[in-house]
Amino acid sequence: VTGSTSSVGELAQRFGLELRGDPALRIDGLGTLESGGPSQLGFLANPHYRSALANTQLAVVVLAASDLEHCPTAALIAKNPYAMYSRIAALFETRRVLNPGVHPTAVIDPQAEIEASASIGPLCVIGARSRIGAGVELGPSCVIGEDCCIGADCRLVARVTLVTRVILGKRVLIHPGAVLGADGFGLAFDQGNWLKVPQLGGVVVGDDCEIGANTTIDRGALDDTVLEADVRLDNQIQIGHNVRIGAHTAMAGCCAVAGSARIGSHCLIAGGVGIAGHLSIDDRVTVQAMSLVSHSLRGPAEYASGIPVQESRLWRRTVARLRRLDASARRTSQHHQENDTP
Amino acid sequence: VTGSTSSVGELAQRFGLELRGDPALRIDGLGTLESGGPSQLGFLANPHYRSALANTQLAVVVLAASDLEHCPTAALIAKNPYAMYSRIAALFETRRVLNPGVHPTAVIDPQAEIEASASIGPLCVIGARSRIGAGVELGPSCVIGEDCCIGADCRLVARVTLVTRVILGKRVLIHPGAVLGADGFGLAFDQGNWLKVPQLGGVVVGDDCEIGANTTIDRGALDDTVLEADVRLDNQIQIGHNVRIGAHTAMAGCCAVAGSARIGSHCLIAGGVGIAGHLSIDDRVTVQAMSLVSHSLRGPAEYASGIPVQESRLWRRTVARLRRLDASARRTSQHHQENDTP
Amino acid sequence: VTGSTSSVGELAQRFGLELRGDPALRIDGLGTLESGGPSQLGFLANPHYRSALANTQLAVVVLAASDLEHCPTAALIAKNPYAMYSRIAALFETRRVLNPGVHPTAVIDPQAEIEASASIGPLCVIGARSRIGAGVELGPSCVIGEDCCIGADCRLVARVTLVTRVILGKRVLIHPGAVLGADGFGLAFDQGNWLKVPQLGGVVVGDDCEIGANTTIDRGALDDTVLEADVRLDNQIQIGHNVRIGAHTAMAGCCAVAGSARIGSHCLIAGGVGIAGHLSIDDRVTVQAMSLVSHSLRGPAEYASGIPVQESRLWRRTVARLRRLDASARRTSQHHQENDTP
Repeated sequence: VTGSTSSVGELAQRFGLELRGDPALRIDGLGTLESGGPSQLGFLANPHYRSALANTQLAVVVLAASDLEHCPTAALIAKNPYAMYSRIAALFETRRVLNPGVHPTAVIDPQAEIEASASIGPLCVIGARSRIGAGVELGPSCVIGEDCCIGADCRLVARVTLVTRVILGKRVLIHPGAVLGADGFGLAFDQGNWLKVPQLGGVVVGDDCEIGANTTIDRGALDDTVLEADVRLDNQIQIGHNVRIGAHTAMAGCCAVAGSARIGSHCLIAGGVGIAGHLSIDDRVTVQAMSLVSHSLRGPAEYASGIPVQESRLWRRTVARLRRLDASARRTSQHHQENDTP
Repeated sequence: VTGSTSSVGELAQRFGLELRGDPALRIDGLGTLESGGPSQLGFLANPHYRSALANTQLAVVVLAASDLEHCPTAALIAKNPYAMYSRIAALFETRRVLNPGVHPTAVIDPQAEIEASASIGPLCVIGARSRIGAGVELGPSCVIGEDCCIGADCRLVARVTLVTRVILGKRVLIHPGAVLGADGFGLAFDQGNWLKVPQLGGVVVGDDCEIGANTTIDRGALDDTVLEADVRLDNQIQIGHNVRIGAHTAMAGCCAVAGSARIGSHCLIAGGVGIAGHLSIDDRVTVQAMSLVSHSLRGPAEYASGIPVQESRLWRRTVARLRRLDASARRTSQHHQENDTP
Repeated sequence: VTGSTSSVGELAQRFGLELRGDPALRIDGLGTLESGGPSQLGFLANPHYRSALANTQLAVVVLAASDLEHCPTAALIAKNPYAMYSRIAALFETRRVLNPGVHPTAVIDPQAEIEASASIGPLCVIGARSRIGAGVELGPSCVIGEDCCIGADCRLVARVTLVTRVILGKRVLIHPGAVLGADGFGLAFDQGNWLKVPQLGGVVVGDDCEIGANTTIDRGALDDTVLEADVRLDNQIQIGHNVRIGAHTAMAGCCAVAGSARIGSHCLIAGGVGIAGHLSIDDRVTVQAMSLVSHSLRGPAEYASGIPVQESRLWRRTVARLRRLDASARRTSQHHQENDTP
């Protein structure tokens, strides 16, 4: 990755970092320890990867003081190297230039309100009574239904759908294919057929949230589905109706959260986790990958139920034993009773 | 949620319900037991939540006779309170007004046939030989390929894709991002490369089905993939080619069904369940969340294989023991043989 | 399925197959052993389904020599019946006629380059500096961002999104709803809030890959996310940033691969598998359905950790025993020590 150019001395000064090495050294891009080149900057955040320092071709590495002695190149010393690297890397991102105004191919309801500084891309559709804030960017082919509100400086990258009654805070970032505000899965069985339970609530998303590609967040049945500020959702996540997710919680790809679950703030939910409905997860709970949460969880604590793979021929035997676990435990217990020294 | 207004006496009469309380009491909206207000109607369906009755601010609650004594407010007594609530709630939904006709930005193949009463939204695309029935509503940006047929009164909310040879019955509701009729995953390995097996069948969806946001249903390889009437699929479900799902079966979010599986009628499949291909599930089978169905299931019965989380430090020990289960069972068995009283 | 018509003698000659039966027999379509009719061709690839031969109404069956004696109809004998069937079936597919040129409703950036033989469907959007190769077909409503490159003869069926810096090889096939090149899930926690780590890499897809409906492949953080040639991904798969998948690997629906995982060539990953980040899977590894891969895997070998369902009342007891496994193993071990013959 290459972009603008800077000297490491300038970077040290700008971000208040201690520099080991020549301040005049110029970098013109970013790279990894393994594949980066001699005019690039990279980082070491996890001491686990420290061995990659020895052979790096990078010009300069952002790292913690404790890793400095292992670094053969120039170094910028940071308390939180990953966060500091992120700040520096932002300098090398291509600046997006916003073109305020509505693309002539967009279809805008006369009752929609759009701030002049917003940019509405080609082939977007905006429904009645929806409001688009200042500095908002809607990429191509977004569909905004009725009664939505998009706060200042949000970015919907492309092909995002807000169905109805979806309220976004400021600076929310949503990736392509995401669908917010579709009906929740509410059904009553009645006289031999399913009867659809009207889904009348909305979705409220706090400031600074990020929502991944093809993630879905259903509207509430009556009250709203809520993401508090700074919630980060990866791709292909499903959030059921009336779920509430606390501030700063992050959730990795392919998780599913059933209706009315309450997830606290500062939680870390790994990929593929399933969370049942009508339960509550405390603040600062961590859940490991592919776990099933079927009861409420106290925090702060870390939970898991995913099972790492074995070779199939071993795993088949494990499963056979597992399925007989109750029967053999009963047998063992009986055996012990019969054989115990009196 | 507020909409029209009604007296509880009118509601009791309209739906043939016994009323406890003042028939002149007016309600103007719907609310939950926990957060609803004094001019709203709510319901209690699950006795598990009975304790919420005590503090409710609702004007009137739809409930079963057995919960009446715990209810401090006016009450409408129903045999199936959730279904009855659904019927009442439908009165408070905003009536959708259909605008018959084709939006000028839609792109319609000359060989497509569209009933005059259908409403085709902005930026839809309809391919050759596809037929759109009476009263159908296509929301914005739907893509209908070739040789599709959409029955009367279907609603495709927005950005739905029917790829090719997809036949929908009447009153089918499909949420944004759903893709019906994409190629099934058919591959033959041949001379060092994958060879694509032509996918030539279609998808047939019965009357009154509902299909969730970002759900995918592949076309059959030769015969069709079939959903019988009143099947209800939540969001982010994957249905492989040539699957058949029986009438009134409901499936929660993020399930995956592999090719040629047969699922009976009146089944309840919880979220995140995986169903292997070429197997058969009887009518009235229930499968609990995140289970793996790898063999055919007899019904009526309930099945599960999901494991609820433990604290990680305990779970790690559980997993270590689980992986040694076969080895330690062999050891125990040998031990017992050696030590048993002769 | 019916399409063109052919005699079985012509097919035998064209594909160099041994025929048993009347070469003048004409077929006009394809069918399955179970439901195919007397003018159709089908196949038997898996001896497991041999019993279906007895009652088939097909005119002719493609099968292995070892199944010939069980076949009551005409037969075409092939070493790899499924692959041979695929080749024959391709003759019966409706030929897609490409209409070169750009649909008038497509929105093309002046800096995009499009080969004259490419076909750009209605309502597509193509961004600056993106290049579309010869013979490419973009179906309706595709969004191609900036700096993408689509190789010759690719087909994006409909509503596919390439966000930015996505490079496709030749003959890549992508199904609706797929999103390639969205930001990876990179976050650093800093001073009480999440800080987005810039995602600056791209996605590189090799020749002959196929990518399923609603599958997502994130762009790399710095280096690219890579699919080598002939990788086959089913629907609803999530591929994290900087993942690398080796040639000829196939992955079934709803798998999730976390960032920086390396998957070898010729791997077979069944549906619903979760693969953790920063690990490595050797060539020719098979992983069974709904398994969790949380450590690197040696190959060639087959792995699993999915648990087939039991009836819920049994499974509840199994789970109760499983959760006590460590405690009871400690107890048993102590018991044995106390009771062992000295």
